[in-house]
Amino acid sequence: MARRSRSSRRTSSVETAVHASPFIRRALPYFDVLDDEQLEKLEAQVDWLLENVGIAFRDDPAALAIWRQAGVEPGGEYGDLIKADAKWIRELCAKAPSQFTQIARNRDRDVIIGGRHQVFAPVYGSPFVRDLEGGRRYATFDDFQKLVKLTYMHPHLHHGGFVVAEPTDIAVSKRHLDMVYAHMTLSDKPHLGAITEKERAQDTVDMVEILFGAETMAKNVCIMANVNTNSPLLVDKVASEAIQVYSARGQAMVVTPFILTGAMGPVSTAASVAQAMAETMICCAFAQLVRPGAPFVMGNFLSSMSLKSGAPTFGMPEPVLSNYVIGQLARRIGLPLRCGGSLTASKIEDSQAAYESADSMHSTMLAGSNFTLHSAGWLEGGLVTGFEKLIMDADRLGSYQKLSGLGLETDENAFARDAYEEVEPGGHFLGTAHTMRNYQTAFYEPKLTDSENVESWEEGGALDMRQRAYARWNKMLEAYEPPPIDIAKKEELAAYVARRKEEIPDAWY
Amino acid sequence: MARRSRSSRRTSSVETAVHASPFIRRALPYFDVLDDEQLEKLEAQVDWLLENVGIAFRDDPAALAIWRQAGVEPGGEYGDLIKADAKWIRELCAKAPSQFTQIARNRDRDVIIGGRHQVFAPVYGSPFVRDLEGGRRYATFDDFQKLVKLTYMHPHLHHGGFVVAEPTDIAVSKRHLDMVYAHMTLSDKPHLGAITEKERAQDTVDMVEILFGAETMAKNVCIMANVNTNSPLLVDKVASEAIQVYSARGQAMVVTPFILTGAMGPVSTAASVAQAMAETMICCAFAQLVRPGAPFVMGNFLSSMSLKSGAPTFGMPEPVLSNYVIGQLARRIGLPLRCGGSLTASKIEDSQAAYESADSMHSTMLAGSNFTLHSAGWLEGGLVTGFEKLIMDADRLGSYQKLSGLGLETDENAFARDAYEEVEPGGHFLGTAHTMRNYQTAFYEPKLTDSENVESWEEGGALDMRQRAYARWNKMLEAYEPPPIDIAKKEELAAYVARRKEEIPDAWY
Repeated sequence: MARRSRSSRRTSSVETAVHASPFIRRALPYFDVLDDEQLEKLEAQVDWLLENVGIAFRDDPAALAIWRQAGVEPGGEYGDLIKADAKWIRELCAKAPSQFTQIARNRDRDVIIGGRHQVFAPVYGSPFVRDLEGGRRYATFDDFQKLVKLTYMHPHLHHGGFVVAEPTDIAVSKRHLDMVYAHMTLSDKPHLGAITEKERAQDTVDMVEILFGAETMAKNVCIMANVNTNSPLLVDKVASEAIQVYSARGQAMVVTPFILTGAMGPVSTAASVAQAMAETMICCAFAQLVRPGAPFVMGNFLSSMSLKSGAPTFGMPEPVLSNYVIGQLARRIGLPLRCGGSLTASKIEDSQAAYESADSMHSTMLAGSNFTLHSAGWLEGGLVTGFEKLIMDADRLGSYQKLSGLGLETDENAFARDAYEEVEPGGHFLGTAHTMRNYQTAFYEPKLTDSENVESWEEGGALDMRQRAYARWNKMLEAYEPPPIDIAKKEELAAYVARRKEEIPDAWY
Repeated sequence: MARRSRSSRRTSSVETAVHASPFIRRALPYFDVLDDEQLEKLEAQVDWLLENVGIAFRDDPAALAIWRQAGVEPGGEYGDLIKADAKWIRELCAKAPSQFTQIARNRDRDVIIGGRHQVFAPVYGSPFVRDLEGGRRYATFDDFQKLVKLTYMHPHLHHGGFVVAEPTDIAVSKRHLDMVYAHMTLSDKPHLGAITEKERAQDTVDMVEILFGAETMAKNVCIMANVNTNSPLLVDKVASEAIQVYSARGQAMVVTPFILTGAMGPVSTAASVAQAMAETMICCAFAQLVRPGAPFVMGNFLSSMSLKSGAPTFGMPEPVLSNYVIGQLARRIGLPLRCGGSLTASKIEDSQAAYESADSMHSTMLAGSNFTLHSAGWLEGGLVTGFEKLIMDADRLGSYQKLSGLGLETDENAFARDAYEEVEPGGHFLGTAHTMRNYQTAFYEPKLTDSENVESWEEGGALDMRQRAYARWNKMLEAYEPPPIDIAKKEELAAYVARRKEEIPDAWY
């Protein structure tokens, strides 16, 4: 642990080098915003939703059979509404581990999900990309590969995520194969698997088995998958089947209610947070019925809304507050948490994008989100992955990594009493022995920040951060070298992809 | 209190209207980052500095006389070093109120400084201004007046600050008169007074006496002034004389150690925070010797440093952490706190400026800073006041105002149980009675944010936030109307300024 924490400090300012990227082992306390009375009210609301309102598991007879086997008879208009004793649901949730390790094929890049650990992953699911040269356009597999490479190279992204952008030039029915293969071969960081159909989830699990071997997979979390519920209060078969595929193999699931407050949840932060808790808890309970002890991450994604148009808004006080609230609730129930991200509704990488992303991410970090999807690269409400945005956000993540991972040092060296013997009133500490001993590790300095004086900045071409980021990611891609991989495994994976692509008909939905 | 808090919510999205701007009455808990052991270590370091290292009061025999009268014999090489019993210093600090009201000439704009209250004021002291049309240039009195007007008009700036930019076209020896007069007549918000020389402080106090009357001034804080120490461990006569002028009249002082960590303090956050505490505490104690019970705000301004050039950096993890730390220490000693701001080293209003400002301000807000100078408009390490930046930052302050002022609502309405009777699984809450009842106050929507879809944004000219801010402040200035003022008082103030300008020779230092 000491080794990792030192390594984190030493390397925090390096950006294009390919080296182990330690996740965060948090030293900072959490920001708890609720008192006991509020916590109990929120939990009572969760229980009320579970017991009296219910959550539907739709279009998945296998899922309903699992509920029936556990003694719950589905009800409601469509015979798929699960209402269950809240105490029992909480008992099932307690079977999930409060933290687990997702191993990577390069074991130096294993991540711990849960407890006092924080893991950053890039944006997920955008159909478009944007960069300073090419503008806004549909994402292609070429973009996808570039984004996987950049994520692999960036020391503050600990996890590869998955759909860093949708490769829209590949048939929907087949693109998961290329995406999984790209993550496995262009990077050696842990990543997520496909969820959009049961077969695609199964393909992922099969490829993971090729890469890691069945024995390793039986004992470890080698893959994790993220799926959304269909809020309000609906778990469609995409979600319930993904849980069945991944949880049955002891692999990890992140289930995330996506709630635009006022649309998919009541126009109230407290109600929407409670609803999200109920939705993800019922999925966690379901995962435990599939396999007791299945690793599960409580997801939360809550946004506010523009009064003018109903468009989702990000980085606003209500979702910022919801991050703090859900963080506290997750610790109470003892489940790893995914929330927040560097979110914005801005179309470009302007100051709006940065204000919103920073407020969103600052609260995500203080709330102790254990796994943060969308921590870099998100633009335009998630419709667009920004190449510059990815690098800009990731650069800022180093700041959160230091703040969260180190907290305030208060050892003898930190108090620098010897320095006061060298410095007169009104003097300066620049040349003191204490400064000489400590200055190299004292400050986190993001690579894309320009703190020089205006003359130097103008001499350098008066570039704004966006332009600096454009130059940076292009330079990074030039320097990219693939991580080593066992050739036989790579060939076996390629053969699997080729075979499955022949078996599966092209489909564009 | 209930009235104000409702008013805060109702008006939080209005920007150009001239109406009462309630300061924040904080509902949110504080983020306490230190445990008891760390707190005690920090306070022991403060005491060690006070007792063993000492702080010099330089070039001000009157200040030394005050210390001698209190039984402290100055020492050190220059006979001006104050070392004092830390317990006694803490007892003196305890004489200062933990909160006080600064009244405004429009009493609807009174602000409470201290306790659970938070007051935002604009940038202070920049010699340059920048805007999208005129670029970067020396600030003039015309700029100054525009900035005072914009501050007056913006509902999220509760306080006028003072040197919103240096009017460099007026002699240094006289500009304080024009600045005070501008604040008093173009705005009716509370503001700060001059400190750069004893006479200028006295002019401010005299003008405040004209505006408020001696009787009101005897019973109330009508003016506050901010002065920096000369860190490390030096209080020059600018500071000690300002304290003597303002504190003697029972007016409020903010004393702020400006510490670039590694230069004016050791290259360590813990050491620099403790040093800042010691410096401001000795000034608070001095103010209490001048007049027991004199209102005093503990200032803190800490920045980190670029390894490349030694340039100050802002919004970085070390100063962000220092905000949280100093917030907790201030509550322990029971003094109102000034810290943080929307700080950045960026030269322009790009994403760097916004990332840094947001991380800096988010922590300022969570730390509970009671009086926040530089909460809007700061660029280029404080060398430049940005017109767009002022409006962009102020717009974001509304978000902090809502988050901090409201916290999480957990009343019956917040849980929206009736809405669940109207909505099916997978349905939406847009048309529910609960949404209809609540949507207008549910979300804070900053005016400069564009959350619309890309097509609408492109139709509107694809303007970035900076361009929108430029249009906005120009529109605001067009709509400016001066607040009413008693003509006799205005004439008396103008006559005072005219007389003093004749008496004082032009000086440009």
